[in-house]
Amino acid sequence: MPDKLQGLKMILAEVVDLHRAGAVLDWDQETYMPPGGVQNRSEQASTLSEVAHRRFTSDEVGRLLDDAEGAVAKMPFDSDEASLVRVTRRDYDLARKLPAELVAEIARSSSAARPFWQQARREANFAIFAPYLEKNIELNKRVAEALGYEKRPYDALLNRTEPGLTADQLEAIFAELKAAIVPLVADIKRHADAVDDSVLHRGFDPDKQIRYALDTVAALGYDLERGRQDISTHPFSIAFGPGDVRITTRVNRDFFNECLFGSIHEAGHGMYFQGIGRNLDRTTVWDGASPGVHESQSRLWENLVGRSLPFWHYFFPSLRKTFTEPLEGVDAEAFYRAVNKSYPSFIRVEADEVTYNLHVLLRFELENDMLEGRLKVRDVPEAWNELFKSYIGLDVPNDREGVLQDIHWSFVGFAEFPGYTLGNVISAQLMEKIRSDITDLDAHIERGEFATLLGWLQEHVYKHGRKFTPGELVERVTGGPLTPKPWIAYVRKKFGALYGLGLDRD
Amino acid sequence: MPDKLQGLKMILAEVVDLHRAGAVLDWDQETYMPPGGVQNRSEQASTLSEVAHRRFTSDEVGRLLDDAEGAVAKMPFDSDEASLVRVTRRDYDLARKLPAELVAEIARSSSAARPFWQQARREANFAIFAPYLEKNIELNKRVAEALGYEKRPYDALLNRTEPGLTADQLEAIFAELKAAIVPLVADIKRHADAVDDSVLHRGFDPDKQIRYALDTVAALGYDLERGRQDISTHPFSIAFGPGDVRITTRVNRDFFNECLFGSIHEAGHGMYFQGIGRNLDRTTVWDGASPGVHESQSRLWENLVGRSLPFWHYFFPSLRKTFTEPLEGVDAEAFYRAVNKSYPSFIRVEADEVTYNLHVLLRFELENDMLEGRLKVRDVPEAWNELFKSYIGLDVPNDREGVLQDIHWSFVGFAEFPGYTLGNVISAQLMEKIRSDITDLDAHIERGEFATLLGWLQEHVYKHGRKFTPGELVERVTGGPLTPKPWIAYVRKKFGALYGLGLDRD
Repeated sequence: MPDKLQGLKMILAEVVDLHRAGAVLDWDQETYMPPGGVQNRSEQASTLSEVAHRRFTSDEVGRLLDDAEGAVAKMPFDSDEASLVRVTRRDYDLARKLPAELVAEIARSSSAARPFWQQARREANFAIFAPYLEKNIELNKRVAEALGYEKRPYDALLNRTEPGLTADQLEAIFAELKAAIVPLVADIKRHADAVDDSVLHRGFDPDKQIRYALDTVAALGYDLERGRQDISTHPFSIAFGPGDVRITTRVNRDFFNECLFGSIHEAGHGMYFQGIGRNLDRTTVWDGASPGVHESQSRLWENLVGRSLPFWHYFFPSLRKTFTEPLEGVDAEAFYRAVNKSYPSFIRVEADEVTYNLHVLLRFELENDMLEGRLKVRDVPEAWNELFKSYIGLDVPNDREGVLQDIHWSFVGFAEFPGYTLGNVISAQLMEKIRSDITDLDAHIERGEFATLLGWLQEHVYKHGRKFTPGELVERVTGGPLTPKPWIAYVRKKFGALYGLGLDRD
Repeated sequence: MPDKLQGLKMILAEVVDLHRAGAVLDWDQETYMPPGGVQNRSEQASTLSEVAHRRFTSDEVGRLLDDAEGAVAKMPFDSDEASLVRVTRRDYDLARKLPAELVAEIARSSSAARPFWQQARREANFAIFAPYLEKNIELNKRVAEALGYEKRPYDALLNRTEPGLTADQLEAIFAELKAAIVPLVADIKRHADAVDDSVLHRGFDPDKQIRYALDTVAALGYDLERGRQDISTHPFSIAFGPGDVRITTRVNRDFFNECLFGSIHEAGHGMYFQGIGRNLDRTTVWDGASPGVHESQSRLWENLVGRSLPFWHYFFPSLRKTFTEPLEGVDAEAFYRAVNKSYPSFIRVEADEVTYNLHVLLRFELENDMLEGRLKVRDVPEAWNELFKSYIGLDVPNDREGVLQDIHWSFVGFAEFPGYTLGNVISAQLMEKIRSDITDLDAHIERGEFATLLGWLQEHVYKHGRKFTPGELVERVTGGPLTPKPWIAYVRKKFGALYGLGLDRD
């Protein structure tokens, strides 16, 4: 029976290799490429993705898929073969639904918009970018129409990245989050002085920070035989296959959090990639389940582990040995408090654990309003600023720190933001289950033993790759549907204690 | 009329991009790839070359070429269009002549042979490798038969890399070289003490060496906006297009020559790549004319410039400032003499300027003898050792330092060695012409002005890419056919003076 899949697997392996080669090109562009390489590199990248797309969307793949569906019909849902065919069918149908002209127009329009978004941002002048956002909305709508949806255009876009989730579901999750976080943010604001993070700004030698971050992620379980760490403007993780999964970090002498937590975050993604079953290699199933599930792993390691007190009980002594001067007179508890300081801010990518989801919520609401015609482009900055004030309590000083901050709206990428919040939500939901399975987890962490936790994640999440949708995975692992309750409980407890908010009664 | 070429150019651009992406993968593998990446990387590389090969050898390209030949029939030989079609036709016919089964068998057999060549080399035991060399000879013969030749099988293989050259021509060149070098090597041996190179082994800080080498090649004209230098086991240069041409180097604290001259050598290749006309970008013509012509540029910059006395008059003061301690009491002339010491040795890749070509000659003769059936595999080590003794005057102590030293015979790569000697020969022939055009070249070099020389090479050699065969290029630039006479005159004069051999009378 598996022979029936052989032809399909060969083409998929070729397509995967082409995408992985493209990933190597991306990595190189962000780390070592000389400035003059931009033009050639964009030619190479677009050729690789065109060739891969042509091959993957060929009629031949359609025929092989039809055959394969018959061959796996009676196989278990979670078998490698049935999963391969199911996931490939989903990808194939989505890829075939987008007309080549639309794909080409999106590419053209994105590269045309980019410089104007940059200029608008530089000059903090939304009007320069407005016509391109207009075009972008139109293209997002056309993509949604081409992909098809039952209820809301956002559903079509979301289904590409987080299959099975709907805008309505997200709306319910965000409503619950908002109800819990907005008052919490206000409470924290009133007790801001309860946490002192001045130690983080005392000056930390950059080379030592980079080295310490690498040692730390290696201790967590990021395998350096199959990985490495480099420097880039924005940290990222990237996989070229199970044998080669890389992370990058950045470093700031005057703010300790950037390098270490950036590295742990990316190593969370990296360990996920490294843990996907080799049996799935060179297929459509070899990847994280979705951007949201991927983010659950980076956030789990970065926040639920890396920003926990047991973590600092273990790591602080070596940290103090490495940075004797800036850490003089500081202990593990004080450092734990410092790295967790909540500081409502304008820029999403620098947001703390509590406020982060509100940034995402705001974009989710605006994207839906734009897609469904309730919000005109000219009114977007005002809508942004109003929501920002009501959620985070800050007056946005200008469009650069407001509506123009993210690159996402300069290309056709609506529905990409929610993955960040899904990551937070799923990380806490998984952690609740982990703590019921590994009851002495904190003791493990306090001893610097991360193998049990990593092993649990490998077994329940990583090894499956893309076999399951985010919803299927959460249900399968935790026994219940996606819910923000564990995350809300987690931040209320943690930040309640940090800021002395007396929330214990809940 | 050029419209007729549009379809062909689009496919060639795609094929070139795929090869360039493959080159990025190669570069990464040699510089930064973690050890676990080997398996995935070889899958990606072979997919890229298969996809590129399939596209390039398609019937569609054949039809487009037929049309194109009509369209360019009346265009000048050296026009971009006529050259593109002529060179593409040559590549296409060669690629189509090799049956897919043979290509696959060569790939399989090369990867099977590699570990046994490595083991044989480690154990200095030729017998372990012998069966694989046997197979390799058979495959080289089959390639030659498939490609076709009039006189000698070597011609077919040589025509792939150095189009237009024949084994007979090479034989004549090598005979002339041998007649001049063998007695010169013997003379030098008798006066070995005339040159003292102990200064090179006094210990040079590796980081400073790498930095100095980079500054030096930048001063020569290697453009760092479109290039960079990294470290690898074996130095190489590699191009991903006109905007991104990289070099690597290696460093040895106890032998100064390795890093600096390795860098200059690779920068010679790099400046060639950087100088190819952008009008030829993303076509089959965007590359060096041949491995031999490419090597002429690395050798020209490394030896004819970098190992010249005017070069050291300019660079020695800054070198001395950088390496104060090891260079104490040394002057420019003494350093010039040291870096030029001739030291007959067993290993080709470490050979000095004088003996290098003899290493290549030896392999050229043995390859022909094997291909034409005059030499049996079991007799190869003995034949090697005898030739080595007669050419270089050394008794080969074992097969590791003898017949097993090069990797080339572990894959199907006969006829690749002559490029190294062609490089030497062409570099001197070009330099003779350069000196007649730029009569005060040494004065330029002594002032650290390399722009005139680089400009000359860009204009006469680099910008043409692959438009001309090595023979056509040499004829076009120097007005005469390929000849080893300038190179022989150059080494006799230079080493006659260095070793006080009294050769001035010739």
